[in-house]
Amino acid sequence: MIVKLSSPYSFLDDYSEGAHPRLLEALLRTNMPQQTGYGTDDYSHEARQLLHAQLHTTADEVAIHFVPSGTSANLISIASCLRPYEAVVAVDSGHISCKEAGAIEATGHKIIGVPHCRGKLLPDRLERELDRNQFFPHMAKPRLVYISQSTELGTVYTRAELQALSAVCRRRGLLLLVDGARLGVALATTTVPEVPSLRDMVDLADIFWVGGTKMGALLGEAVVVRRAIAEGFEFHIKQHGALLAKSRVIGVQFAELFRDPDTPLFFELARHANEMARRLADNFVQMGFALAAETETNQVFVHIPDDILPLLEERIRFYEWEKVDGHTVVRIVTSWATDETQVEKLNQWVRQVRRVRA
Amino acid sequence: MIVKLSSPYSFLDDYSEGAHPRLLEALLRTNMPQQTGYGTDDYSHEARQLLHAQLHTTADEVAIHFVPSGTSANLISIASCLRPYEAVVAVDSGHISCKEAGAIEATGHKIIGVPHCRGKLLPDRLERELDRNQFFPHMAKPRLVYISQSTELGTVYTRAELQALSAVCRRRGLLLLVDGARLGVALATTTVPEVPSLRDMVDLADIFWVGGTKMGALLGEAVVVRRAIAEGFEFHIKQHGALLAKSRVIGVQFAELFRDPDTPLFFELARHANEMARRLADNFVQMGFALAAETETNQVFVHIPDDILPLLEERIRFYEWEKVDGHTVVRIVTSWATDETQVEKLNQWVRQVRRVRA
Amino acid sequence: MIVKLSSPYSFLDDYSEGAHPRLLEALLRTNMPQQTGYGTDDYSHEARQLLHAQLHTTADEVAIHFVPSGTSANLISIASCLRPYEAVVAVDSGHISCKEAGAIEATGHKIIGVPHCRGKLLPDRLERELDRNQFFPHMAKPRLVYISQSTELGTVYTRAELQALSAVCRRRGLLLLVDGARLGVALATTTVPEVPSLRDMVDLADIFWVGGTKMGALLGEAVVVRRAIAEGFEFHIKQHGALLAKSRVIGVQFAELFRDPDTPLFFELARHANEMARRLADNFVQMGFALAAETETNQVFVHIPDDILPLLEERIRFYEWEKVDGHTVVRIVTSWATDETQVEKLNQWVRQVRRVRA
Amino acid sequence: MIVKLSSPYSFLDDYSEGAHPRLLEALLRTNMPQQTGYGTDDYSHEARQLLHAQLHTTADEVAIHFVPSGTSANLISIASCLRPYEAVVAVDSGHISCKEAGAIEATGHKIIGVPHCRGKLLPDRLERELDRNQFFPHMAKPRLVYISQSTELGTVYTRAELQALSAVCRRRGLLLLVDGARLGVALATTTVPEVPSLRDMVDLADIFWVGGTKMGALLGEAVVVRRAIAEGFEFHIKQHGALLAKSRVIGVQFAELFRDPDTPLFFELARHANEMARRLADNFVQMGFALAAETETNQVFVHIPDDILPLLEERIRFYEWEKVDGHTVVRIVTSWATDETQVEKLNQWVRQVRRVRA
Repeated sequence: MIVKLSSPYSFLDDYSEGAHPRLLEALLRTNMPQQTGYGTDDYSHEARQLLHAQLHTTADEVAIHFVPSGTSANLISIASCLRPYEAVVAVDSGHISCKEAGAIEATGHKIIGVPHCRGKLLPDRLERELDRNQFFPHMAKPRLVYISQSTELGTVYTRAELQALSAVCRRRGLLLLVDGARLGVALATTTVPEVPSLRDMVDLADIFWVGGTKMGALLGEAVVVRRAIAEGFEFHIKQHGALLAKSRVIGVQFAELFRDPDTPLFFELARHANEMARRLADNFVQMGFALAAETETNQVFVHIPDDILPLLEERIRFYEWEKVDGHTVVRIVTSWATDETQVEKLNQWVRQVRRVRA
Repeated sequence: MIVKLSSPYSFLDDYSEGAHPRLLEALLRTNMPQQTGYGTDDYSHEARQLLHAQLHTTADEVAIHFVPSGTSANLISIASCLRPYEAVVAVDSGHISCKEAGAIEATGHKIIGVPHCRGKLLPDRLERELDRNQFFPHMAKPRLVYISQSTELGTVYTRAELQALSAVCRRRGLLLLVDGARLGVALATTTVPEVPSLRDMVDLADIFWVGGTKMGALLGEAVVVRRAIAEGFEFHIKQHGALLAKSRVIGVQFAELFRDPDTPLFFELARHANEMARRLADNFVQMGFALAAETETNQVFVHIPDDILPLLEERIRFYEWEKVDGHTVVRIVTSWATDETQVEKLNQWVRQVRRVRA
Repeated sequence: MIVKLSSPYSFLDDYSEGAHPRLLEALLRTNMPQQTGYGTDDYSHEARQLLHAQLHTTADEVAIHFVPSGTSANLISIASCLRPYEAVVAVDSGHISCKEAGAIEATGHKIIGVPHCRGKLLPDRLERELDRNQFFPHMAKPRLVYISQSTELGTVYTRAELQALSAVCRRRGLLLLVDGARLGVALATTTVPEVPSLRDMVDLADIFWVGGTKMGALLGEAVVVRRAIAEGFEFHIKQHGALLAKSRVIGVQFAELFRDPDTPLFFELARHANEMARRLADNFVQMGFALAAETETNQVFVHIPDDILPLLEERIRFYEWEKVDGHTVVRIVTSWATDETQVEKLNQWVRQVRRVRA
Repeated sequence: MIVKLSSPYSFLDDYSEGAHPRLLEALLRTNMPQQTGYGTDDYSHEARQLLHAQLHTTADEVAIHFVPSGTSANLISIASCLRPYEAVVAVDSGHISCKEAGAIEATGHKIIGVPHCRGKLLPDRLERELDRNQFFPHMAKPRLVYISQSTELGTVYTRAELQALSAVCRRRGLLLLVDGARLGVALATTTVPEVPSLRDMVDLADIFWVGGTKMGALLGEAVVVRRAIAEGFEFHIKQHGALLAKSRVIGVQFAELFRDPDTPLFFELARHANEMARRLADNFVQMGFALAAETETNQVFVHIPDDILPLLEERIRFYEWEKVDGHTVVRIVTSWATDETQVEKLNQWVRQVRRVRA
């Protein structure tokens, strides 16, 4: 077995470890009972029921489908409800815009880009873009708005912000899709007032998904689709290769993440991730480092002077987000698995570096 | 936890249980070391090396990529190497022809159907179809031949049969793709003389895949692509939502399936599945039931008189394949997980039924 | 100017000449008045009104759109009303099945093939195929039935046959698309009893098109779409490159083809084509040649002994349809432009050949 | 026949009239000789030869194909040479980016937008965008650069500018596609120094097309493709419904446009269009109106004070391009058909308006 022992601790992302132990135990426990596949197994049914309980919904109101990855969640959701000439509106920094290898376009749909503000889509910019895209049929018809909660920059839409966007969408005849790869940390944030609830997501969006991969699952995302637009959704999943024969592998994990109705593991893990990020961010700020964006969830974007950068690289692993004259914006990501000791070590190092330079 | 206790034993398919325990243990053992994702983790690298050893190949000769499902393996393989106007040739009974919800056509490619013979594509029928598809550019251009090993009917291409098909493909400028959802049981068959080896697959096909889902993995298929046509393959995987963030989940399992170079678990499991099917088939034949196809692997297709059918339904779960005057062709599938006791119980029941009717 | 003087007269197809002179004159006459483009010109409006008059429809009931080619008519019609997982059912001999380079699949849709009977789709074969395609979501969902009037073999669906097919479609929730590349000759046939009228097409189909290219136009087909499924049709036309800037070029020609409400040029031309084919067919039969299909429209399929074939090739140009032991089925096509003298010359030659052999 | 007599003269676009009379005469003259279709007719061959003469190329160097519309030229060109994960880079104002209803994305390809400069793509902005799109395989791979000559704003790339772009493309492994909907007016401009020649286009681009629709043809564009990437191009044309049965309709017109090797009608018409635009632009400037872009070809972009706008609307037809505080940028387009008298009338009116306001 190959194990890297000596590489520095990774703050690269929130999927560097496997699954939360409770999820693995559940997989072990449920391994042998025979089940039918392709989404019809008892564990997936159970997971759907537990999710409905969290969402305060019934199967009449929304359909819940499991898919293996975030890209499949996005591309299937979009392909399922657009006609060929309809387009998506998204911020330029959106995951579908620049990190999914053209997966949306591969299903035939244009993405109309809008400049973001701290990772978010602003209602007035959305309206302006809609106004600009009216020269039909020479322009593709905007029909779906895509946002992420939390955003690519780790920021969180407040309930009011989400309501405002949703209102524009409904007034203009657009569907609203919320990418929830990091929905857990968004809804569990403590630094943003008036965070929407899971039920708010149901009320304000048309499709949204609850990310499992970045919240302790080996894989799997739960797509929640308003029943009115859910017809045939399972065909889309199958057609895109996302209908697993052993669908139990996702069902079991989601059931475990939401088993406890009052304190679901899902949100416990999210709170840990957020807390670790907050400690890092607070320390950076106290030590005089500027943040490139408020740390509202589990991602810290911090300006690191270029002379310090090599030293940081010896200590931890991270992504360089962008270069800004003499500094590098560094992305540090925490997760359910982030080791408190490692956070403290990094904080100490930051304090030392600062002391030396002071 | 919901568990069905009283339902009859399932011979529906080879994915009714979870993973082989050794694979789950490997997932537990490797769970916490941090890894990079999207196919770059150490476990996936290790699995590739172990597969190369089995295939007697190097990374210079073939690329090995992991994807979550059989449909994604097929659609990505096909989309990766065809130009938009190029078509696939496959038997009418092929999985891509009738069980993948139009996944291949959704990538833009026509499938030209050829009548099968015991699930197989015959070289002369292939040639005749190629001759019929020459009216260019009004016809799509045949460019890739798709077959399954074993076939949808559980039959196995001998080495000679595969060589003959491969020779036609090369002479006519076609690529050969082998769907290996059940490659394990095919190569482990003991009832077919001159079965191709894994290395033969490399030599005779251009792309083939080694199915994990039906051979004890929770999910995952290993696609083996001739290096000359493998450029950019990882983009296709990403674009179709099949690049898992925690790619370790497939890597770990495949490493375990092929860890032992001399007696890989993969083939041990295949042999068990085949042996269980053989026992069932032999008993059916001895008791006077006719098989609809030779039982060469883990699928038994047996004619059941319609008056017995309801009795069988009380005993086991199975698929009805087709109705043939007064009989039903029933598909009974075994797997690595098939319980020997259940096989014996079914055989006893068959013997009783026959005695009663005799 | 290059002109081939000496090549034999062509019965290859019904598009060997340019446009009927009256259409060219109309293009000359309307050339200079300024018009807006992309389907909004006055001539296209006029053509739509004239077509509505022939169809006994209003714009509330059906939308009429012009596209440049038959393949674009088919692919746009199909892409406009199917969701990604929905499939087309068509006979194996259908134009979309084997003569359009995979154009339908390139829009993402599977074509489910059914064996034809004299070029036609039979209701019971359709039903059987629908019954076979129920294993959802693993199979693409049949949603649209494609037929041609007249068929690839020149045969014509009677009103009763069309009613029967339409009834199956409506009972099973399918749309009916009629490829009318040769609708003119079909509706003008005199050898088939109870031929459907243009109004019948509106009542029995959901989309059908009136072919101009093969009925004297330089290019252009008029697609007639039930209003209920016509929303956004012009986007599809634009998206597929079929919305001509100078849309007048098709509008002017269709206006001319249907200017005279009682004796539209369109049907006059069709009758000429049919009459020429009938004369050829009658003569072949009288001279002892067997027809491979009844000559109901402008295509004659006749068995020519292989020893005569080279002689025929010196006389006229034609397609070899298929080889049948010692004979070749030859396709001879007439059109609005077919020269009566050439028909008589060919008939004479056939009589001579026969006399010599007798 | 419906003819609008009283509407104001249209400067809306360069396709408001039918064809140049010489082209219609050629259609009449060539109407009856029988020809084979789908691009194989003698007239299309002749047109290809005449174009090769103008381009100083042979069929070994470039392939020439005719398609009915600009959108089909762009989408077929792009679809023909990209693999599914490859992307196009284009300025945000590019025709494919915002005026083709998502036609490129409908073939599966992402368009990566770059801010334009006077309608043009600048080499350094291109390089910066390429540098930003390197995070593979999570980002689509830039593979083709799309520009227009002349641009959407009527500006013309000089030979040096085109060389610079072409050099970047070749250094970075990208193909260069030039949309030539208005290539005629671009190459015929007299106000830009060092305009590239047709031969330069061959040398610097990989695919470009010569627009007929906007240069006096009823329809038709000639796509010129480097032989090395032209394989199978006719399949793409067929598959997208752009292969006309009576391909002569485009062939005849292009042959006429380029019949005279020394003074091809094509460039004569372009010069007239440019001259008309220059007279209008010069007059606007002399009368104190500001141009929004230099008038290098047949499009005049002029700032019209909003109080004058309604008066202008009574005089002529035009597009409002954009609103800029108190002014409207108005697009006035001339063509081969623009009436000198109407230009003079408009100029007079502009002089009067100015006198009144002065």
